[in-house]
Amino acid sequence: MTLDFYYEFASTYSYLSVGRIEALAREASVDVCWKPFLLGPIFRAQGLESSPFNVFPVKGRYMWRDMERQAAALALPPLVRPDVFPQNGLFAARVAIALPDEVRPPFTRAVFHAQFAEGRDISEEALIAAILRDLGRDAEADRAAALSDANKARLRERTDEAAQRGVFGAPSFVTRDGELFWGNDRLEAALAWAA
Amino acid sequence: MTLDFYYEFASTYSYLSVGRIEALAREASVDVCWKPFLLGPIFRAQGLESSPFNVFPVKGRYMWRDMERQAAALALPPLVRPDVFPQNGLFAARVAIALPDEVRPPFTRAVFHAQFAEGRDISEEALIAAILRDLGRDAEADRAAALSDANKARLRERTDEAAQRGVFGAPSFVTRDGELFWGNDRLEAALAWAA
Repeated sequence: MTLDFYYEFASTYSYLSVGRIEALAREASVDVCWKPFLLGPIFRAQGLESSPFNVFPVKGRYMWRDMERQAAALALPPLVRPDVFPQNGLFAARVAIALPDEVRPPFTRAVFHAQFAEGRDISEEALIAAILRDLGRDAEADRAAALSDANKARLRERTDEAAQRGVFGAPSFVTRDGELFWGNDRLEAALAWAA
Repeated sequence: MTLDFYYEFASTYSYLSVGRIEALAREASVDVCWKPFLLGPIFRAQGLESSPFNVFPVKGRYMWRDMERQAAALALPPLVRPDVFPQNGLFAARVAIALPDEVRPPFTRAVFHAQFAEGRDISEEALIAAILRDLGRDAEADRAAALSDANKARLRERTDEAAQRGVFGAPSFVTRDGELFWGNDRLEAALAWAA
């Protein structure tokens, strides 16, 4: 049993799922396929020029407070709100998609931690390189693979695939029979469906 | 300990909370203050001409599927999607706000059941009158009270109050110390905070 896990590096609630999904999936005996994608094109297709949390500021204010509470409830470090939201996660997503499957989860966790626990700017290539080196990777080789035309195309195709499966936000979870679950709050239900 | 429960009669996820809140609140030893309000003015203040589920159809399609699953998970009758969404809940909200406190919960439950389990049109005064009579009420007197200028003003004030407390969707829960929780998924957390 497999569950596709669509996440966007700038997405606050994706951060929560990134930290929870592995232990919960093990318990449920479900394999997780980590699928970084881009929300920007999906938002634009809905007529949104930015994150709904920016387009609707009253909702954005609530989200930041809710995230503080959620971080506390999940015993995560105090949430650091990035100076700019949403951050530009394009480079991180390209790197993530180019990495071997077994490196993608720890890389993803480290990028989200840098962003929401340390307030770092994840669009900085130096930060991404440092994370890769910490994981024992050749950061220059990973950068080159990430920026290849073929890899850029893979990320575009992944984003198109997400849109075709009905994804409109992140995190989203899709089972092999096409059942879509949206939001960190639906992670357990998605795993139960997949199992 | 008290929790303010803001709900809108046309709101799908409000239906889920209406069915769950009393038992959960009893368990948590929290008193619930049932506060019907109108989402229309709140959506318009955000620049939305209709429910976000209509403005963003891909999100709307997901919501209906999610509601089907949620109804099944909560052992509710199979969800009936109303012919028109959102329904016009103005009259039901006016009646609800005019009723004595102890009648508001059973009236509210009956209206939501008629809408989402039977597919009835809750803007029909005859339906609301039948629900009131089933509750042993004088439906004509309740109608008159609902349509008084003072009662109409109360509903407007209630909606303004919700907006001032940061409410942007329904259901929403607000604790006495001003903590806002949005969505049926946050009901347990809201009760825990209130307690």
